[in-house]
Amino acid sequence: MQSYQQLTELFAKLSDLQHMSAILGWDEAVMMPAGGGQSRAQALTRLHAMMHELLTHPKNSDLIDHAKQHTLNDPWQQANLAWIEKKIRHAVCLPNQLVKELTRSAIECEQAWRIHRANNNWPEFAPLLEKTLNLVKESAQIRAEKFNLSPLDVLIDEFSPNMNQAIINPIFSELKQKLPDIISKTMAKQKNLNITQPEGPFPIATQQQLAKKLMKTIGFDFNHGRLDTSHHPFCGGVPQDVRITTRYNENEFISSAMAVCHETGHACYEQALPEQWCNQPVGQALGMAVHESQSLLIEMQACRSPEFMHYFASIAQHYFGQRDALSEDNLYRLYTRVKPSYIRVDADELTYPLHVILRYELEQQLIEGDLKVKDLPDAWNEKMQTYLGLSTKGNDKDGVMQDVHWPSGTFGYFPAYTLGSLIAAQLFASAKKTHPDIPQQLAKGDFSLLREWLKKHIHSRASSVSTQQLLTDATGEPLNSNYFLNHVEKRYLNS
Amino acid sequence: MQSYQQLTELFAKLSDLQHMSAILGWDEAVMMPAGGGQSRAQALTRLHAMMHELLTHPKNSDLIDHAKQHTLNDPWQQANLAWIEKKIRHAVCLPNQLVKELTRSAIECEQAWRIHRANNNWPEFAPLLEKTLNLVKESAQIRAEKFNLSPLDVLIDEFSPNMNQAIINPIFSELKQKLPDIISKTMAKQKNLNITQPEGPFPIATQQQLAKKLMKTIGFDFNHGRLDTSHHPFCGGVPQDVRITTRYNENEFISSAMAVCHETGHACYEQALPEQWCNQPVGQALGMAVHESQSLLIEMQACRSPEFMHYFASIAQHYFGQRDALSEDNLYRLYTRVKPSYIRVDADELTYPLHVILRYELEQQLIEGDLKVKDLPDAWNEKMQTYLGLSTKGNDKDGVMQDVHWPSGTFGYFPAYTLGSLIAAQLFASAKKTHPDIPQQLAKGDFSLLREWLKKHIHSRASSVSTQQLLTDATGEPLNSNYFLNHVEKRYLNS
Repeated sequence: MQSYQQLTELFAKLSDLQHMSAILGWDEAVMMPAGGGQSRAQALTRLHAMMHELLTHPKNSDLIDHAKQHTLNDPWQQANLAWIEKKIRHAVCLPNQLVKELTRSAIECEQAWRIHRANNNWPEFAPLLEKTLNLVKESAQIRAEKFNLSPLDVLIDEFSPNMNQAIINPIFSELKQKLPDIISKTMAKQKNLNITQPEGPFPIATQQQLAKKLMKTIGFDFNHGRLDTSHHPFCGGVPQDVRITTRYNENEFISSAMAVCHETGHACYEQALPEQWCNQPVGQALGMAVHESQSLLIEMQACRSPEFMHYFASIAQHYFGQRDALSEDNLYRLYTRVKPSYIRVDADELTYPLHVILRYELEQQLIEGDLKVKDLPDAWNEKMQTYLGLSTKGNDKDGVMQDVHWPSGTFGYFPAYTLGSLIAAQLFASAKKTHPDIPQQLAKGDFSLLREWLKKHIHSRASSVSTQQLLTDATGEPLNSNYFLNHVEKRYLNS
Repeated sequence: MQSYQQLTELFAKLSDLQHMSAILGWDEAVMMPAGGGQSRAQALTRLHAMMHELLTHPKNSDLIDHAKQHTLNDPWQQANLAWIEKKIRHAVCLPNQLVKELTRSAIECEQAWRIHRANNNWPEFAPLLEKTLNLVKESAQIRAEKFNLSPLDVLIDEFSPNMNQAIINPIFSELKQKLPDIISKTMAKQKNLNITQPEGPFPIATQQQLAKKLMKTIGFDFNHGRLDTSHHPFCGGVPQDVRITTRYNENEFISSAMAVCHETGHACYEQALPEQWCNQPVGQALGMAVHESQSLLIEMQACRSPEFMHYFASIAQHYFGQRDALSEDNLYRLYTRVKPSYIRVDADELTYPLHVILRYELEQQLIEGDLKVKDLPDAWNEKMQTYLGLSTKGNDKDGVMQDVHWPSGTFGYFPAYTLGSLIAAQLFASAKKTHPDIPQQLAKGDFSLLREWLKKHIHSRASSVSTQQLLTDATGEPLNSNYFLNHVEKRYLNS
């Protein structure tokens, strides 16, 4: 037991360092003036190096061996020890020098990306991306050999534990096969729809009031979090102090309001994690696929539903005045309009998975195949033409350079978005089966039954079981695409 | 040389941790929702323990001994090594257990103070303060014996290096003797003055614009800092990213605007520290007495001068409209009005030193005499009656409980405020001697000559020399009260 306690003390310390990293990262995106970037990068690099040092201390492996010799009775402790072992073993096998080089390269690449993307300057950006990718590949290769996995599976698992290409490939194949037909039928159906774009200005102070009203409605606890403004909406901070952001545009409030619902879904997960395990790996959210399922469940399943649109229209009219463009029917049409576009983060529910599949397939070729960085723009363009009928030739800014993930060394993350969509649909169907009143509640802006169900089946369980177990316990089935496909067919073709 | 380099690397690491502490501290005061307090306290306690561990590593003493065997040619390196030695020697002699207990006790005491002060509840607060004070005394006593100083001198030196009771006592005696007379004459002179309080509302958004205009005028670099709102104005952050705050009241802008000038004085010092030494002790500001001199020079000497009031009136009228209450004469009268009051932070330039002397004398009795915490309210009341003719009997909230310093374990800090006033007057007189045009420049909102002089004589020198040396180099004299007394006589009696 003593070894286990020493390990939990180590992770309590790491959790405090993670607190610092989370708040400083939020501050960098939301508050920091540009001139503070250099000293912040320096401090954060130092912090991450310290965390890696703690995780790779030579005595840790012994502690794990000792801890495993004693049986822990509590399944949460068992799961915690398994997480601790996994985190330490993965960290230990990487040379310190490689970790430092990758950290520095990723920071430099991301900083350069901000400039080169703005200038649509692929040629100058490509060598930096290549350097970062090579270090990522090296780090993945070392772990792949050590743990007998493929390199991309190592990376996927880092963000979405227990997920891998064997699970993802057949699901993505099915989506790739079925979605184009649904998309074209939907577009044909929507062609003659009468949609009115609400006319601004929508004062930002009023949009902020609307955003806070939505957050309260969904269940955000303002004693343990806040809403701010940043270039891209995100959810950061720590469970006791969750920081979500959105962006505002005086001319339209539609996308900002729904981004708030999305981030509130993330936030409610964090805020409902079990407090007694808050500084241990088992007490954290279960990776990004499940996290994304919580934001997409709130955004796509609940808040874009026709039922919730009834409530949403009433508060939109409360803040911006009664008018036809804010009728529940028109808002619903706005929020379910389908149209292929260049930018993933602006994509609708139907085309979004194709953006993800495109990236996932390129990652497979980059990490495990022989696609070269220099050939990425052409490969991107080709897939965009095939999947969405759009050309990004000469427009790398809105093509291969649009996302922060690769420049920041984040490969293997993208599948989490679409896995999240699928999980969201599966969970929502199950929640409605238990509580058929959920849709009627949503129409009144009441999230209590849904929140309770999510808390019981997802949030309170944190990382105490595997993703597939969590899903099977909650819905009776492992991850599958049926619920998502049923959902989009119902929403887009049969309504 | 190698030992010296290892020590500078240690302090570069400590500087990164200090960056984290500074930004997290700012966030706690400005951004953090109340419910985030527990995990933040935990993270910050951890961070400070880590800093103390780094500072007290057994090998550090050897490194200092080795480093001192080699002569460093650069006087900045020499000064840096002296600072490093001082910091390590002071940290090393304190038992880890004591440091931890003091950190925890101070955090608990400060958190309790917020509640008990609001409820004017001295009896419940007193035992917590006593506990913290006892730990501070223990820590001071250990260092006093080690370095052959008195315990209070140890504490004073911690905040205002090279200052001690032998320097402070005669200066404070003189002020205590001369100020009451100046105050009563001033009050008699001001008795029949016609002063109009500007009538609000003054919208907070407009006050913010005025604040930023003042900051730009004085020389704040917004690429390396920002302005926010907090309960008490302060200057935090790091030199590359200086965070100042103020508070707003829709009914009056007078005090908020001047608080901004004050904090901008602090900020300009931080922003002009030499970049190449930014992560070493020698590159830091030279303690709180000099820091306070920079804020008070900008606030009291420059911004409350009749010359600057000409410019200030023009921008106040720009933002709030032309009216009699915003004439330069009326504003000058408002900003130089003298009236004894309970609260130190709201005190005018003449009564402020008496607030400080009161606290300093009580600290002497608490740390080196036999004053007991339980007798503090009576002792406070007695001195308030004597120095300012006000009774705090039964009103401990506005008496002994008003400041955050003692609850947070900060004893020996208060003299820095009045030393700062004296230094500010001495520096400003010298700057005007070199550049007689400074007052005329201020009348046009032009701080360039003053800023240049301060940068050359104070900011750019950081901690490369002692406080007395810095002052002697800048003004030709060591610290003395003549300039301050001349200044207040001229401003309050002879104008």
